[in-house]
Amino acid sequence: MKSANIKTIMVLAQLLIIPLFARVYAQTDPLPSWNEGGAKKAIVEFVKATTDKSSAKFVAPEARIAVFDQDGTTWVEQPMYTQVVYCLERVPAVVKAKPELANVEPFKTVLSGDREAMAKFKMPDLMMILAATLSGMTVDEFNGEVKKWLATAKHPRFKQLYTELTYQPMQEAMKLFRANGYKTYFVTGGGQDFVRMYSEQVYGIPPEQVVGSAGATHFGYDKSGKPILTKVAKLLLNDDSAGKPEGIHMMIGRRPVAAFGNSIGDKQMLEYTQAGDGARLMMLVHHDDDKREYAYGAKSKVGTFPDALMAEAKKKGWSVISMKNDWKRIFAFDK
Amino acid sequence: MKSANIKTIMVLAQLLIIPLFARVYAQTDPLPSWNEGGAKKAIVEFVKATTDKSSAKFVAPEARIAVFDQDGTTWVEQPMYTQVVYCLERVPAVVKAKPELANVEPFKTVLSGDREAMAKFKMPDLMMILAATLSGMTVDEFNGEVKKWLATAKHPRFKQLYTELTYQPMQEAMKLFRANGYKTYFVTGGGQDFVRMYSEQVYGIPPEQVVGSAGATHFGYDKSGKPILTKVAKLLLNDDSAGKPEGIHMMIGRRPVAAFGNSIGDKQMLEYTQAGDGARLMMLVHHDDDKREYAYGAKSKVGTFPDALMAEAKKKGWSVISMKNDWKRIFAFDK
Repeated sequence: MKSANIKTIMVLAQLLIIPLFARVYAQTDPLPSWNEGGAKKAIVEFVKATTDKSSAKFVAPEARIAVFDQDGTTWVEQPMYTQVVYCLERVPAVVKAKPELANVEPFKTVLSGDREAMAKFKMPDLMMILAATLSGMTVDEFNGEVKKWLATAKHPRFKQLYTELTYQPMQEAMKLFRANGYKTYFVTGGGQDFVRMYSEQVYGIPPEQVVGSAGATHFGYDKSGKPILTKVAKLLLNDDSAGKPEGIHMMIGRRPVAAFGNSIGDKQMLEYTQAGDGARLMMLVHHDDDKREYAYGAKSKVGTFPDALMAEAKKKGWSVISMKNDWKRIFAFDK
Repeated sequence: MKSANIKTIMVLAQLLIIPLFARVYAQTDPLPSWNEGGAKKAIVEFVKATTDKSSAKFVAPEARIAVFDQDGTTWVEQPMYTQVVYCLERVPAVVKAKPELANVEPFKTVLSGDREAMAKFKMPDLMMILAATLSGMTVDEFNGEVKKWLATAKHPRFKQLYTELTYQPMQEAMKLFRANGYKTYFVTGGGQDFVRMYSEQVYGIPPEQVVGSAGATHFGYDKSGKPILTKVAKLLLNDDSAGKPEGIHMMIGRRPVAAFGNSIGDKQMLEYTQAGDGARLMMLVHHDDDKREYAYGAKSKVGTFPDALMAEAKKKGWSVISMKNDWKRIFAFDK
């Protein structure tokens, strides 16, 4: 009998081991890649207060929505947005299928490989390249092409896959939010279909939680009668600036309680987040670390962070994250 | 020592009581409002097979997406879509704010209360009424108006709040899917913003899982500088027929594995669902019960179910749910 008791206790104790370990683990630092300071403290205290039932800042579980810009906020956006690199590198395949484009600008310049000339492309040039490389194929074909490209394409400076160039501190922040019942969403100017190809694997954000610039699709049937969705060159959502709160309303239908961005294109998303009742957290990543990543701001074409945005952040109580000072480590592959 | 052992066992046993009760509960019939038969069996077996790791039909947790049409599939859509009733009943308030509309058609007819004349409205008339009552206000104002209306408006035949007119068997089916790790979505021709006002409370479907016809919003600032979203009369997504798979791709980004509809407008959604690999479930609710609800089909303006759809269902192996034969109970308030 005694032996049976001991056995029962052992079995029951085993059932308790996993939850106990989980509790101990939760008590370790959830943000180890952050230096101690205001930015880290703001995140930890916000998550704690909004999930503590006895706090005046408590947020009901279903309302826990945290939104993150992607380019420049959770991964590298210099010297060029990853998706733009993808589009440029797709041009040869597009021209192969449509040889008449070979002598037409801007395709001719892309094929020449003249990076200086490409850097001078104006918006209409880029729009032509985006339309040619992001539409005209089925959704399944596009998904396959993106996955294939992501598996081998490397960043010119870091010599790493683009999907390795995520910011470890932001990965930790997203995990901390999720561990506390938050749904984390991307709200990105990047293409929704493009980002969905890696968001789950790379960031733990499932496709249905990616809000991005979105082109229309057209439902139809292939020759065998199989239903297909074809990507068409018609922009349904330009998910940048005012388009971000508009996209959040359309795709999520709730106002976020926390929002992270890094540039002027995130301003309206942060304003919209802040305009709700109760506890709110608005943060901007500032690229001020040219040794470990890049330093850019007011004058950059990509990820512009004008002085007026810094002034607005100060005035409205938004936290500015200094990559140089607030981040102990930037990439997972950093020592 | 022995007493301490017993105490330990008691404490540990208590920790196990809740999971044990949960297991016993799960063994009771999850679909008590369904009669035994093919439709009930199809749902129960599909859920069981797709969540059983040893089954060839197993579906990974992240891919468990089940989509439901709303009007006519999960609640009453006769004699008129609930949202259309809302729009008609909003007309007096709109005319009060813009008195010049009082003598303009179709508003004049709506104000007259002549239901027979209203039944003859053509699409352009309805579009004018929808535009006038669903745009021009802020999102917050609209949400407030809808909530207020839903709290008192009653169905002419059942004399119940519209939100009481959900089909109990479908509520049970949605719960069964969710209890097995499925995310349940509405994919409705109805207005996304309208349905989001009650979907969570009435169906357990949160706003971010409502895909519906969606008008654009415009981000701006009110006189005090507060950020606001204003609803504008521009359709971004007509979530009916081919618009359903297009909307699913835009808003969810994954192909569903189960789809429920009730009319010709759901055909493409079911085809798109079926075209994926692995286990699939496609079902159509057929309104054949004029005693307890309504009997309509090929000739109805609302919820048309043509003979060709019945033929396609048979050919493609879609299950047709007979309200008369498959449902033991229709509403929660039925005895």
